[in-house]
Amino acid sequence: MEYKQLVENIRAKRSFLCVGLDSDINKIPPSLVKFNDPLFEFNRLIIDATAPYAIAFKPNIAFYESLGAEGWRSLELSVSYIRKKHPGIFIIADAKRGDIGNSSKKSAETFFKKLDFDAVTVAPYMGVDSILPFLDYKGKWVILLALTSNEGAENFQLLRTGKSERLFETVLRTSSKWAGKENLMFVVGATRANMLVIVREHVPDHFLLVPGVGAQGGSLEDVFKYGNNRSCGLIVNLSRTIIYADSTERFDEVAGQKAREIQQQMEKLLKKEFLQ
Amino acid sequence: MEYKQLVENIRAKRSFLCVGLDSDINKIPPSLVKFNDPLFEFNRLIIDATAPYAIAFKPNIAFYESLGAEGWRSLELSVSYIRKKHPGIFIIADAKRGDIGNSSKKSAETFFKKLDFDAVTVAPYMGVDSILPFLDYKGKWVILLALTSNEGAENFQLLRTGKSERLFETVLRTSSKWAGKENLMFVVGATRANMLVIVREHVPDHFLLVPGVGAQGGSLEDVFKYGNNRSCGLIVNLSRTIIYADSTERFDEVAGQKAREIQQQMEKLLKKEFLQ
Repeated sequence: MEYKQLVENIRAKRSFLCVGLDSDINKIPPSLVKFNDPLFEFNRLIIDATAPYAIAFKPNIAFYESLGAEGWRSLELSVSYIRKKHPGIFIIADAKRGDIGNSSKKSAETFFKKLDFDAVTVAPYMGVDSILPFLDYKGKWVILLALTSNEGAENFQLLRTGKSERLFETVLRTSSKWAGKENLMFVVGATRANMLVIVREHVPDHFLLVPGVGAQGGSLEDVFKYGNNRSCGLIVNLSRTIIYADSTERFDEVAGQKAREIQQQMEKLLKKEFLQ
Repeated sequence: MEYKQLVENIRAKRSFLCVGLDSDINKIPPSLVKFNDPLFEFNRLIIDATAPYAIAFKPNIAFYESLGAEGWRSLELSVSYIRKKHPGIFIIADAKRGDIGNSSKKSAETFFKKLDFDAVTVAPYMGVDSILPFLDYKGKWVILLALTSNEGAENFQLLRTGKSERLFETVLRTSSKWAGKENLMFVVGATRANMLVIVREHVPDHFLLVPGVGAQGGSLEDVFKYGNNRSCGLIVNLSRTIIYADSTERFDEVAGQKAREIQQQMEKLLKKEFLQ
């Protein structure tokens, strides 16, 4: 998907919500057990219920691969389903890959050719080699980890790497020379919303993928206040808060209501100038 | 596998060779196309031919997942095959995972429960949360990226994080407080053999997994000289140099010969005191 289209979708849906498909075979409603592929069935219903309020879906790859070949099949089906039924939606593989050379090329092949994702989350530790192979695909995106929402982020991401900056800032500054706002985004956790001001000094124009609102305690208002730019510039992900909002047979309906609530909060935040 | 057993295996086989199963469906000999699962067939023959000279195998997960559910099946079969036919061998999932919370737990489940790997390579950027969930499995290992063999390693790993150390040193120093030599190893590339002296100042006792000898140009002699400790402390990985040494129907025989050559170089390097 092109940058322009993504911004246009946010404007049209008055939403910058991404629904995280952290679909766990042990947590989905018992009513789904009877299906041949319960995980896909869960996703299908969640996708249909929330798609009107979301501009992106983000399957968490770890959850699918823990089921081996079968889980991989559920993932393939889910991505195809979104493409077919909700063609305008941006699909993110939350894979946190980060390798070099042929391995990176294979990962890009996996997520952009074998599966038709729009974007993959990538870890920066191994440097430019982890990123370039993904950028060979036109219209596809790398979403690079910058400042994550967990406590362990402090172990390395907040280390001072120079007199005036921290590691996550060096990652932003260095990697934004490798790719522009058209095919590179950054992960910045909502639990560090005050840091968004610093993030925006380095990358004013790039999109940020923001996890950590909801279950992890981050504030949507603060994320928007400190992180938005003229094109919105934010994709805020919620997973458990939406997909496990209810565990009865009405789980999809409740998930849809929850997504709608969040879309309405987002619509209020989005500036009138932007929405016109 | 326990630390003691690993050291014992190195002593018994007079080898610290790991064979990297970077098995690429586009590179395996054409004679295998007729098989139902050509990738597994390739692995099976490479495994049998090289196992006498190797103490570890390391499937590169990116190569398998690029084939989707089918590739995942080949991986499952390969790991089971090693376990059954060559029970003493250490099996490393070169997955370079690095996430937090439930996602990390799922990854640990994938590689240690669903598949019976001994170890997984992990990226340090997200900190302690990426590592702990793997350490809940007794006898299993995390192999943390420290200083990699690629050029891009210079982007971040070599940044000064304090007056007297670089990021990879902080990673070594910090993470070696989370786990001891019994369940934590580090990846250090052979192309930076001179840095092994610095690595050993921080982690004298931990095992190091060393890629980059062979195709990438690192020297086995230098790696041993600067990196070995009283228990050998090294697992040196070669992939392409061995598995693609030949592309005729004799590819497995040639791979075995190549592995044997390297084992013999390793035997010469291993100190007499250690081998007794």
